[in-house]
Amino acid sequence: MEARKPEVLCIGFGALGTIYSLLLSRGGASITAVARSNYTTLTTTGIDIASAKYGDIPNWKPDRCVRESEPDTAQDRYYDYVLCTFKNVPDHKRASEIIRPFLKAPCGEEQKLPTIVLLQNGVGIEEEVSKALVEGEERLASGIISAVAWIGANLVDGGKKVTHGALERLQMGTYPIQANEQQKAALVEFTRIYTNGGGGGTAVQDIETIRWQKVLWNAAWGGLSTLARQPVSALLDEETLHYSIGVVRRIMLEIVYVARACGISEERFPMASVDQAVNITVATSPVAAVNDASKGGNLAAHFKPSILLDLENGRPMELEPIIGNVVARAREHDVDTPRLDLILAALKPNQVDAIRRADGDRVEKRGVSTTFSQLTATSRGNWPAGAPVSKDSRTYL
Amino acid sequence: MEARKPEVLCIGFGALGTIYSLLLSRGGASITAVARSNYTTLTTTGIDIASAKYGDIPNWKPDRCVRESEPDTAQDRYYDYVLCTFKNVPDHKRASEIIRPFLKAPCGEEQKLPTIVLLQNGVGIEEEVSKALVEGEERLASGIISAVAWIGANLVDGGKKVTHGALERLQMGTYPIQANEQQKAALVEFTRIYTNGGGGGTAVQDIETIRWQKVLWNAAWGGLSTLARQPVSALLDEETLHYSIGVVRRIMLEIVYVARACGISEERFPMASVDQAVNITVATSPVAAVNDASKGGNLAAHFKPSILLDLENGRPMELEPIIGNVVARAREHDVDTPRLDLILAALKPNQVDAIRRADGDRVEKRGVSTTFSQLTATSRGNWPAGAPVSKDSRTYL
Repeated sequence: MEARKPEVLCIGFGALGTIYSLLLSRGGASITAVARSNYTTLTTTGIDIASAKYGDIPNWKPDRCVRESEPDTAQDRYYDYVLCTFKNVPDHKRASEIIRPFLKAPCGEEQKLPTIVLLQNGVGIEEEVSKALVEGEERLASGIISAVAWIGANLVDGGKKVTHGALERLQMGTYPIQANEQQKAALVEFTRIYTNGGGGGTAVQDIETIRWQKVLWNAAWGGLSTLARQPVSALLDEETLHYSIGVVRRIMLEIVYVARACGISEERFPMASVDQAVNITVATSPVAAVNDASKGGNLAAHFKPSILLDLENGRPMELEPIIGNVVARAREHDVDTPRLDLILAALKPNQVDAIRRADGDRVEKRGVSTTFSQLTATSRGNWPAGAPVSKDSRTYL
Repeated sequence: MEARKPEVLCIGFGALGTIYSLLLSRGGASITAVARSNYTTLTTTGIDIASAKYGDIPNWKPDRCVRESEPDTAQDRYYDYVLCTFKNVPDHKRASEIIRPFLKAPCGEEQKLPTIVLLQNGVGIEEEVSKALVEGEERLASGIISAVAWIGANLVDGGKKVTHGALERLQMGTYPIQANEQQKAALVEFTRIYTNGGGGGTAVQDIETIRWQKVLWNAAWGGLSTLARQPVSALLDEETLHYSIGVVRRIMLEIVYVARACGISEERFPMASVDQAVNITVATSPVAAVNDASKGGNLAAHFKPSILLDLENGRPMELEPIIGNVVARAREHDVDTPRLDLILAALKPNQVDAIRRADGDRVEKRGVSTTFSQLTATSRGNWPAGAPVSKDSRTYL
């Protein structure tokens, strides 16, 4: 219908950025990739894609490439969509701060502000971006599509190759769930481009619930596996399963209780999601008594969650989106989350180290609005938002 | 009074074994050391002791030395005391199994069975030894002294040197607390030898409570530091303290609740022990608002608990004495311990690996009486003792 190709800016050109850019490109979009270390690969030889679902695609290139360090070069046009596949570490750098420098400021009649597509893990990640880029005075985007990917893909060979399995399912919805006609249309159009390109996912009415469902697995099986510094499969052995399973189930229950306190009903997020998220993983256990192929568990033998991979490599983890945001909501609504609090407290020292390293060891405090030393000894109840302690000064110390 | 020197067998000749053998030797005892890797050092050059409290003692040797691999050679006599300073990992090898091979069987009139001195961390460690060696049919010991050491000592230079700080305090009591006159006398005599040798500790009426008090610190600050794989000091920073402190305090509360359920009253184990064990560590924090020299916190800057050191070195941890035994008692008495369960579940995979390695990768199952595969799918509620899950089949899966 339109002669003009939809323009897509993809920030964060790792495995997910590559696969989804490929699909959108095949669906008719023009892709501008924001690259960091793989700029040269993307602009010379291209990247090799080896996908069980889409076949081998050697030397694939996006339509054009800009350097992360030169964001101005991306500001020559208005994009239809800004696909965010970068790692979301708001306690290091807010997503809006990462996105903003690439966007063209509104100017006269020709302006067509982009829809931001947040293709990242966690709950509650949309709010900050919406406030800063959509609702704020300096409006740079027209709205947000929130998207959850169920996919196994990895960047290998020093960023020259992406390997991808057979699974690819993207679930997408508007943020907020009740959106205006313009944003509903943007979602329909984005879904059309993506499915035209071969994508296997769909637009959904209630993406918020799907985020909670994915966090259920990521925080519980993923959290325990990260504390153990072992693949999830190490929790499923004869000698470990009877220790892990009850703990994992109860972490999931904490998450459901927080979701309920946030107004997400049984109808939207059934309690049965917990057993499902426990069973689908237990089904892959080598323990004969619980192994159940019919449940469709398809965990890779030595699968490690992304939080653990980041931890092992000394990189900042997506700790706030996956665990911290749940804990912050629990505190808001006075829900007890003893296990999530413990996971967060145990990983926080490593997160602090990783963020310092990422900043070149400059000790900067971000994200935490009140630091401990600003508190007086008698006002210790005044903890930073999200701190997993009671705000009641009588009970925390 | 007696011409005969008291005979002490010391099993586990690491830093603690060396220091306490030194003190008992100075107090008039004859020491037989059971050595493993440091046999040659102990029988040739001797071991160098560098102690802030006792000074520099070069080339110290016990009276005689036997090899751990040749336990028969220790059976030429009855000992007055068997000092157990080996690492206590009952899920690998029960303490009684380690002690038994060195002891002379009862024989005729001359028999004088030894008192076992358990100088190890944890709660509930006496029961197994008592049942197997004191109360059992094959009686090899007359009773048990339970002892808790407050000391900082390390084996360095490949086992050739022991470094020791200024702190040395041993608290000792009979097991059970109500003991017969013979065992009371054995405690008095042991305390006399130890204090004559320069030891700074005392006999106490209620050693059980002191074990719980030490576990309070070891399981809470030690547990969280181990999950973080960071020294305790890393939990005390500006950016981490408000995450760790509430969690640590609540782990301690779980321990007090379990102790209460086990019949240990407020009078014996006051709730104020929790604030004390929190505050004494927080007082060493670099955070100005909470640092308090008057509280006497004296944590070394990069102090790591022994569980963490073992974990980092791939060795079996004292997980059962310090955490597992508390959790097992919690299950017996239906006390909720969400945080301790999580710590246990998160460390169990590493413990299983370490025990396999210690066994030369032979996959043997010890300690767990029921393995998972012996359960049928319909009897999943029948968990092994100590497993941190509810026994109620409706709630765990």
